[in-house]
Parts: sequence; structure tokens; C-alpha cells
Amino acid sequence: MARSLGRIFKGFQRLGSRSSIQTQLSSHPPASVSFRTSFVRTVVNPSAFSSKPRDFSLPNSSWGPEMMRLYEHYNSLCEVETEGGEKQEGPWRRLPSYNRLLKYATGGVHLSKMIQSKARLFTRNMRDPGAAFEYVLFVNSEEQKCVCIFQAGHLLEGPPGYVHGGAIATMIDTVTGSLATLLSGPVMTANLNINYRSPIPLGSTVLLESCLDKKEGRKTYISCKVTSTDGSRVHTETTALFLSVNVSHLLLGV
Amino acid sequence: MARSLGRIFKGFQRLGSRSSIQTQLSSHPPASVSFRTSFVRTVVNPSAFSSKPRDFSLPNSSWGPEMMRLYEHYNSLCEVETEGGEKQEGPWRRLPSYNRLLKYATGGVHLSKMIQSKARLFTRNMRDPGAAFEYVLFVNSEEQKCVCIFQAGHLLEGPPGYVHGGAIATMIDTVTGSLATLLSGPVMTANLNINYRSPIPLGSTVLLESCLDKKEGRKTYISCKVTSTDGSRVHTETTALFLSVNVSHLLLGV
Repeated sequence: MARSLGRIFKGFQRLGSRSSIQTQLSSHPPASVSFRTSFVRTVVNPSAFSSKPRDFSLPNSSWGPEMMRLYEHYNSLCEVETEGGEKQEGPWRRLPSYNRLLKYATGGVHLSKMIQSKARLFTRNMRDPGAAFEYVLFVNSEEQKCVCIFQAGHLLEGPPGYVHGGAIATMIDTVTGSLATLLSGPVMTANLNINYRSPIPLGSTVLLESCLDKKEGRKTYISCKVTSTDGSRVHTETTALFLSVNVSHLLLGV
Repeated sequence: MARSLGRIFKGFQRLGSRSSIQTQLSSHPPASVSFRTSFVRTVVNPSAFSSKPRDFSLPNSSWGPEMMRLYEHYNSLCEVETEGGEKQEGPWRRLPSYNRLLKYATGGVHLSKMIQSKARLFTRNMRDPGAAFEYVLFVNSEEQKCVCIFQAGHLLEGPPGYVHGGAIATMIDTVTGSLATLLSGPVMTANLNINYRSPIPLGSTVLLESCLDKKEGRKTYISCKVTSTDGSRVHTETTALFLSVNVSHLLLGV
């Protein structure tokens, strides 16, 4: 395992500068996705890929009206019009999302085939739209917060008719980890303290709102609330702790 | 939703006494699986089913040597030989595990087709052996503890080469929830407080050991430790709180 990762790491070194790779290769997957995209844009020519990666954060036929309405709302905040009628970046930014961390970060399919070619990001491991996790993250760097719109598919069942507590924890880890990486660079989840207030009906759309509580040295504290889309019902409340890591530690398995 | 569940509930009432249904229909899925099986054995004739449900807790071709070794170890503790050479129940018991809560609990496929026929238990939603969660739970009622052998498949990736924190949380919720239900009847997860100590390599087999901390009124406190199979490495440490619930609350969505 450590040997394989060492091999990949050498691959990275051939593809770009070490510092840019360290930015891409967060130990926390969701946020690295956003970094990866900028990597693709700036370092590797996408047309060199054998296939274009699918961005799972874009709408598909399974998204219900509530999911679409909220997506369009936050998407509209990603671009604002000046008084002169010009368009410019807004306070929010949508994070693209892919199902494989290494494949597209390192220049195509060949390198990823060398190891674990079948590995997929847990939250994006289904091809069937709407079956499991449908979600999109929007971040607001200035206000150090993010919001995730999440539609829970039929394969996430726990209690009959409701979403599994582990599937909710998975989305919370994804959202808080993305924000932590955005604010602190590469991090590892150190603690998740989740209070489950009310169950989430299977098939429903909910909001995950997350913000920075504080930063202390290597520690980044993030909180996260899962509510119904109108905010009237609280499903969970969470505090999360992330530790900044040197990516080479993860690659070497230490 | 509440109407659909009401309809199912009437279906249950036709199939058995209300008290036995309440035992089956835990709001926490994994442990209810064990109850469900006894329900199938005692109330419904399995031969009346159009197809026999697959027990996911039995070995398949994807199980590695470590998974098999531990399975056989705990399985051997489920039956002991007396001095007279007779076999009798041992201190441990394997919990069967299915991918659908309602289908087999209520007399076959017809009732479950009425609602959410596509819904599947989150931890058993893949047909491909070895791709995601491979696990088996053994419980020791006398000592109020349980152990789960878990082999993490390639579709559970978080950081490159490691298991997603949400997938680990999912297994912890499953194991602690099963023990809580076994000890306290129908429960809901109220809190999971997970400390992540070291990441779990994708493809590896780990142990989840869980025991009762205390019971106070409606509250059941359970702790859980995830370690390497030789116990030398601690991956996570968790305390969990479960609240006893009246199943009709869940059915009515209140």
C-alpha cells in the first residue's frame, strides 16, 4: 500500500510541481475535488483525457423541484451584475464533484489504473441518478461558510422510510470536511459529534449549513446543521474537528 | 408518507399480533434484522415467498483470509459441546442480515411493492460482492456486547486509498444500534461522538467491538472501538446514545 502510494507520488512529481500537488491531494476528499478542478484547468489540458469526467454536482433528471429551486437560487449568487451591467464573481461558488480522486487529478486514466482502478469516492459510487447521494455544495469563502443541498435516494434507507444515520453522517463529514479543507488546506477528520434530532424521510431534500467556529494551531472547528429546506425542522446538529496534515504522511501511511 | 406507512401498518396487523410487530419493526434497522428473522421463522412460512432472501452475513467469494478466519472463530463460539458430547447454544450468536426491512418481515414481495419497492438498507445496497460493506455481526447477550468483522470494499473510498469517514460512521451506527436494540428494544440514534485516531486502508478487514456502558430510563449508552484485527492499531473510538421509541411514532412520522 505504502509502496503503491509512493509510486503514485512519483507520478505526481512528473506531472507538476510538488507544491501544486500537495494542494490537490487533500486527505479529505470533497474539498480536494475543488482544488483538483483548478489543477485540471491550470496544469493539465482536459482535451488530453480519454474521457471527460462527469461533474456530479450538476443537475440531472432525478433532481426534484425543491432540489432544482435551491440549486438555481445559490447558483444565481455565484455571479452578480454590476451597476454598469457587467457580470462578475458573486459571493458564492459551486464546488464541482467527481467520483475518483486520482484519475482526473493526475492526467487521465493511465496512472489511476496502476492501483485501485476500481476505487470510487463513497458519496459518488452509484451511476444510477437519484439512487443514493444527490448533492451540490456552494461555498462562501468570505463568510467562511458553505451550504449543501442534499436529496436522499432510495438506497440510503435505515429505519423503514427514513435515511440511515450513517448516510447522514457521511454527508456531514463531506460538508464539514470540504469547508475545513477550503479554510485550512489538507485536513483529516479527528472528531464528529452528531446529535440526531429528527429522522429524514427517504427521498426528501434537506439543507446542510456549515460554518467555521474557530481555528487553533493545527485544529479547525466546524459546526453543521441539517434542516428541512424551509428551516422549520432541525434534523441534526454537529460539531466537527479537523487536524491539518502533511499530505506525505497520508501517502506514506504514517 | 404517513398515509403510506399507515397502510403498511394495517398490513402488519393482518399478518400478526401488534406486539410481535412492534418487536420486528425497530426504528433501528440492523438489530431489527435479527428480530425479523425470528419473525419469519415463527409466523410466516418461508416457502410462501416468491424468492428466498439472501443472508448477507454469510461468507461469499470476496471475503479475504482474515475475514474468513475471524468469521470461523466467532462462528465456532456459537455452538459448544457439552461433556456428554452434545451440542448446545454457545455464548455468541450470529445476526443474519438482509437488504430490505419490510419485504421479508411482512410476508413477501407484494406488500413491499406497495411503497418504496426500490428502497434498500444503506449498508446492503450493492449486489456486487466485496464492492462496499462486507460485514457480519456476532452478539453476546449475556455479556451485553457484540463484535463486527468488517471488510471495506473499493467503493467506500474517502482520502485516496483509505475508507471514507462516513463509511466508518455508518458501520459504527450499525453496530452500536444493533446492540442497543438487542438490549433495549426499538431505539433511535440520538448521538454519535466519534474520535478518528488513524485511517483505515481501503480493502482491509477491521474489528468493531461494542459494549453497553449504561442504561438510564429511555437512554441506552453504548461504546464502540474500531481496531485492526490483531488489536494493535486503534482506528476510532466512539460513544453512542440511543433513545427508546414507540414504533408507532416512527410509523406516523411524529
